[in-house]
Formats: sequence, structure tokens, C-alpha cells
Amino acid sequence: MIKRGFKLIEYENRLERVQSMMSCYKIDILLITSEFFMRYFTGFSTQFWQSPTRPWFLIIPLKGFPKAVIPEIGFRAMQKTWIKEIFTWPSPRPEDEGISLILNLIKEMPSKFNNIGAELGREMSLRMPLVDFFSLKSNLSKNVIDASPMLWKLRIIKSNSEIDKINHICKITSDAYENLPLLIKEGDSERDISRKLRIDLISRGADSISFLPIVSGEGGVSQIICEPTNRRLKNGDILFIDTGSTYDGYFCDFDRNYSIGKVSDIVKDVYEILWIATQSAIDVAKPGITLSDLWKIMVEKLDKYLPKNYSYGRFGHGMGLQLTEPPSITFDNKMELVSNMVLTIEPSIEFLPGKIMVHEENIVITQSGAELLTTRAPYRIPEIL
Amino acid sequence: MIKRGFKLIEYENRLERVQSMMSCYKIDILLITSEFFMRYFTGFSTQFWQSPTRPWFLIIPLKGFPKAVIPEIGFRAMQKTWIKEIFTWPSPRPEDEGISLILNLIKEMPSKFNNIGAELGREMSLRMPLVDFFSLKSNLSKNVIDASPMLWKLRIIKSNSEIDKINHICKITSDAYENLPLLIKEGDSERDISRKLRIDLISRGADSISFLPIVSGEGGVSQIICEPTNRRLKNGDILFIDTGSTYDGYFCDFDRNYSIGKVSDIVKDVYEILWIATQSAIDVAKPGITLSDLWKIMVEKLDKYLPKNYSYGRFGHGMGLQLTEPPSITFDNKMELVSNMVLTIEPSIEFLPGKIMVHEENIVITQSGAELLTTRAPYRIPEIL
Repeated sequence: MIKRGFKLIEYENRLERVQSMMSCYKIDILLITSEFFMRYFTGFSTQFWQSPTRPWFLIIPLKGFPKAVIPEIGFRAMQKTWIKEIFTWPSPRPEDEGISLILNLIKEMPSKFNNIGAELGREMSLRMPLVDFFSLKSNLSKNVIDASPMLWKLRIIKSNSEIDKINHICKITSDAYENLPLLIKEGDSERDISRKLRIDLISRGADSISFLPIVSGEGGVSQIICEPTNRRLKNGDILFIDTGSTYDGYFCDFDRNYSIGKVSDIVKDVYEILWIATQSAIDVAKPGITLSDLWKIMVEKLDKYLPKNYSYGRFGHGMGLQLTEPPSITFDNKMELVSNMVLTIEPSIEFLPGKIMVHEENIVITQSGAELLTTRAPYRIPEIL
Repeated sequence: MIKRGFKLIEYENRLERVQSMMSCYKIDILLITSEFFMRYFTGFSTQFWQSPTRPWFLIIPLKGFPKAVIPEIGFRAMQKTWIKEIFTWPSPRPEDEGISLILNLIKEMPSKFNNIGAELGREMSLRMPLVDFFSLKSNLSKNVIDASPMLWKLRIIKSNSEIDKINHICKITSDAYENLPLLIKEGDSERDISRKLRIDLISRGADSISFLPIVSGEGGVSQIICEPTNRRLKNGDILFIDTGSTYDGYFCDFDRNYSIGKVSDIVKDVYEILWIATQSAIDVAKPGITLSDLWKIMVEKLDKYLPKNYSYGRFGHGMGLQLTEPPSITFDNKMELVSNMVLTIEPSIEFLPGKIMVHEENIVITQSGAELLTTRAPYRIPEIL
């Protein structure tokens, strides 16, 4: 069993890293509102984010410790984290949901660059009412700038303790995928499969199953994101399952394809070509290689199969506290791989009109190359009888 | 089994209601970005919202049908809904995540009030990068105004089909709570209980368990929102469990308290007083009564126990597609109850320093009074041996 939580040093390191970046990005104060950045900096872990009623804030100064500005209901829960400075208000209080507290705190803090950084950019949204954000902004004598490049730069590189947790959930889920043909059979509905797989994942130690599309279709599936339906598996179907399950807040994100009884030669071929494309990316991934390089090596394998003018999308992405995180493996992303990046390798093909197939594995980049976190999918499509 | 999905007429009614409200609120075009309003208007159901990479948009004009502006990856999934006008772009495309598409569509739409309504207000956040929102705003010749009062007014009143789904998940969860003493015992950890209850809820037909704080403590608990820990139940503990589980997208939200073996007289008394306070609100709730009235009748019962100067928070709230929704049952909320409101009745007490207890039931308001959706908690605290 992988230990839950982190040692204090993990949070101290995160704070030290972000404060040193804040100097480079000319940010005096970082304002955090979202579940995952809040968790990253504080360790605060609750499903209470499901309630949209109350905003939660963390203020990180250029020097010194973070200050939590949170609803009263969260005070004792936040006290269990390493955060010592906790300010609360009795929420819900629509006329002032923490805004006056933030303004007072910020006024007293030193300012070198006159900039406050906030979650304004790519792959994030600000989790507070915008009317409050506008009021905050107009009452501040500082600029509010986009901190997203800095924030993602921070989280793209995982610590070894984070990787341990991701590895743990990848192994749990790999085992469940391998065991699945024993649990399900022709005639089961997509919902039956969802129920059985959820129970199996929880029994094996997954905390939550936040993402579990289960899609079946004759000779292939037409989409890969919908919830399961009452459609029943029949001979000749392809069954596609993807999951973002979590352990201690960290995600796996990978899929598997199964054939129900016999499938066509074209499906078998496409499966193997996608397996080879995935493998080619895993084989070359190492520090210094760019994301665009990874994308191209996968496209080369698929191009043998599909016409050259086919439009490919992204072929993988970062993951960690969230199901998907930057960076994207796309044709023009020149970012270089570095050690401790965790990525999905995820080539896809529309092999017939309305029939797509996607493979996916999770890897971590090390000095000597990629290490698989998932147990590799079988080279030939597994059969369910 | 309650049928999944809704008939077409449900979505047509929602559209008709919102368009008639838009006239009153002087909104020409409604811009939707968030998971739950998207689902409300379209029926689009996916856990893919877990990925923060891609924004999704719905544009609702004052007259005519909604237009979905979504990432290509969602096209075939959106086609399964009643939405016919679907515009896509190949996302991720950081330089233009749907913004040019929205601008072109809005330019062609008639404008009477020169106002676009968006999710800017209470109990919501805009699910798109703010840098994109600013760019959109500066390229529009229209005002962007807060549509939150209108949007919540719409969702506060549930249709009978929505209530059926909420009732179904409330019944599933009530049965699981009643059965729980048979599943767990002294010595189990909070995490053991979480695992057992999750599996039981899924086996009984819950789709997901999005919120499940499990908290135990000697003679009472100090907080009610944290994730379960490795703490083991021992004689004299109070076990608090709350859950927002879902069926077909709709939440229950209610809790239960259990005693492990013998507990003190004060705990027994507090439990019964909270039971009585809950019952008093259920008994009086009917159209015309205000939320403030409900709050006051509960406080009266608790005041017999606690000093009058004690500061009480909110004692319940709306629920439906989300774990918590407006309205709030607070001392100053003069909103009147109307038929088809679904509410939690949720009085709480800090009965000793750092020891709190919360009761919670779910009701629907009908012409003749409140109907319980949950199976009422026992009058005396249930014991786990």
C-alpha cells in the first residue's frame, strides 16, 4: 500500500518552487481559487467542491507562508493541513463572499512588481463568481495577470511521491482491466459492465472513479466520452473502456479495447497498428525529445494505414491531480520532455466513417527514457466470450 | 427502475421557460459554459468535464433553438441529444478555443436589448479561460450581463420527472444507510466504511458517489466535509456519514449519525433535539412559507438547548443536478416556498467546543405541504455494535 498524504517537505518544496518562479514571472501575490491548485499547495482534500455555493481562496505571497481565506465550514478541515494562517467568514453571505477579507490581507502585503497572479489562462477556470472577481479587481491598486503559464510549468513536473501515487492507481486499474474478461460476457449491458468494473476497482483500492466511459458498437465505436447505456454486448462488437480513477487524489487515465467474439480483420489490423504506434512513442520518449517528435513518430506508423491528408488530433497529454493536464502531444508542440513528466500516449484513428479506435498508456519520463506506469495492453485485441 | 433521460418535451419546456424569462431579464443571447447548465438545456451527459483542457459552449437565442459550440471530440456524443445545430473546432487549439466561432454566430443573431447573459454570479463560475472571456467581451458590441438570477430561478423549480430521479436516488441511499449497521463494526476504519458503502450504493443502483465524507470521533465529530481516514471506530464514537450520490445526473444530499456502542446522554439529547428541529421544518413547509420561516422554526427548537446568542449558519438548501443549489435556508432569506422546490432540511449544532452534529433530510414542496424523499432518520440514534 502506498502511503497517503505527503511529508511536510513536499509542500515546502512546492512553496519554494512557486515563490522562486513568482520572482521570474514578476508576481507579488498568487491568488488560487480552484480545487486542484488549492490541493497542490495545501493538501486540502474534500469532495465538498461539488457544492458551488462557497468560494475558497489561497493567497501565496512572494515571501512567507500561504494564507487560506475560506468559508467557516472548512476551518477545522483546513487546520488538519500544514497551513497555519486561516481566515474565515460565515458563508453563504452573498453580499461578501470573502472579498473584504482578501482585500484587507492583500493591502497589508508588500508589493515589488505591482502584479497579482490568478488562474486566468489555458486549461483552467477561475472558481469564484465573476461579479466578485470584477469587484476585487476594481478595488485593488494592482494589476491582475494570468499566472497559468507559471502554474502549469510547476505541476507538469511531478515529484517522486506524486509518481508513486499515479503508479499505484495505474497498477490497480491495469489489474482490473486484465481481469475484466472474467467478469463480463456477451449479453451484458454497458451499464452492467460499469457497475461490475466500479465495484472491482473500489475493491482493489481505487478511491473514486471520476471518469468511466464505456462504449460498445458493432465493429467499432463512434465516440469515446459518453456515459454507458443499456446497449447489450453482442458478437462482433468492440467494447471500449477508458477510466480516470484516483488514488489519494492522483489519476490514471488509460483505455482498453476488447472484442466480443470474432471481429473483422480490419479491426484486428487497426488494433495492432495502434499498438505499434503507441510502442514507438514509448520507445523514443526521453528528455530532450519534443512532444511534436512523439506525435510525428506515431503519425508515421498510422500513415502507413491511412491517407496522408488525414487530420490527426492530439495524441496524449499530461496527467496527475487532474484527468488531463498540460502538455499536449500535438504536431506543433515544441516543448521538450524532461524527467518526471507523466504523460498519456494516446494515438487514435477513424478507420472507417464513424468508427474510431484509441489506444492509451501512461508513462513517466526518466533520464534513461520512458517507464511504463500501466501494464502494457496485449498486442492482440483481447476477446470476451 | 426509473427511466433514464427525459422525453423531448422536457427540453422543449426548459427552452420555452428560459426564453420567456430572457425577455423579462432583457437578454438577447444566453451563453452557457458550465457542466450543469449545459446538461440542463441539452441533456449532454459525460464525465469528460473532468478534463479542464477544452471549453464547451451553448448559445441560446431569444427565439429559435440552442446552438452547441463544442470541441470536435464531442460532436458524435452531442448528436445523441436533441440539439441539432452543432458547431465544432479541433481542440486543443490554444490560439482559438471556439472564440471565433462564437463571435461569428453571435454577429448573425438579432439583438433587441443589446445584452448577452452569462454565468457571472452567485453559486456558479464561468467554465472557460478568463483570457478568452475578456477577448470575447472586447470583440462584442454588446453588454455581457450576469444571468445568474434568471438561471437559478429556472432550476430552483423542478419538473416532476426531475423529482422522480431525485426520489429514486434518495430511496437507494436511505436503504443503504438503514442497512449500514449490518455491514460495519467497531474496529473498521473510516476508509473501510467508505469502501463498503460505495460498493453497496453501486450495487443498489447509484451511478456515482460524488460526495461521501465519513467522519468519526469520540463523543462527536469536529468537522463534516473531509475525506475518510484510517481512524478506526471504537466504543463511544459518533460516526457521521453524508452523501451526494447520483442517479441519472440527479443528486440526493443527506446524512446520518450512528453511535458506536454506548454514547453519553448529551449526545442522545442533541440527536433527539435535532430530530425534532428537522421534523418541525418538514411539518410547516408549504407554499407561501418563507425560507427564513423554516430557519426560525428550527432555531426555536435548538434555542431551548443552546444559549440565544449562538450563531447559526444555514439550515438547508436546494439540490438537483448539483449537490447544493440555491436557495439557502438562512435567517434573512425571504424567498417563499413554491411547489416543486426540492430542499434539504439541515439543522446543526456545536453542542460542545469542537463537537458538532448535523441532521439532514430531503423534501419536495407540494401544494399540500412537504413530502419526504428520504426515509426519515430514526428518532433515536442508531447503534453500531
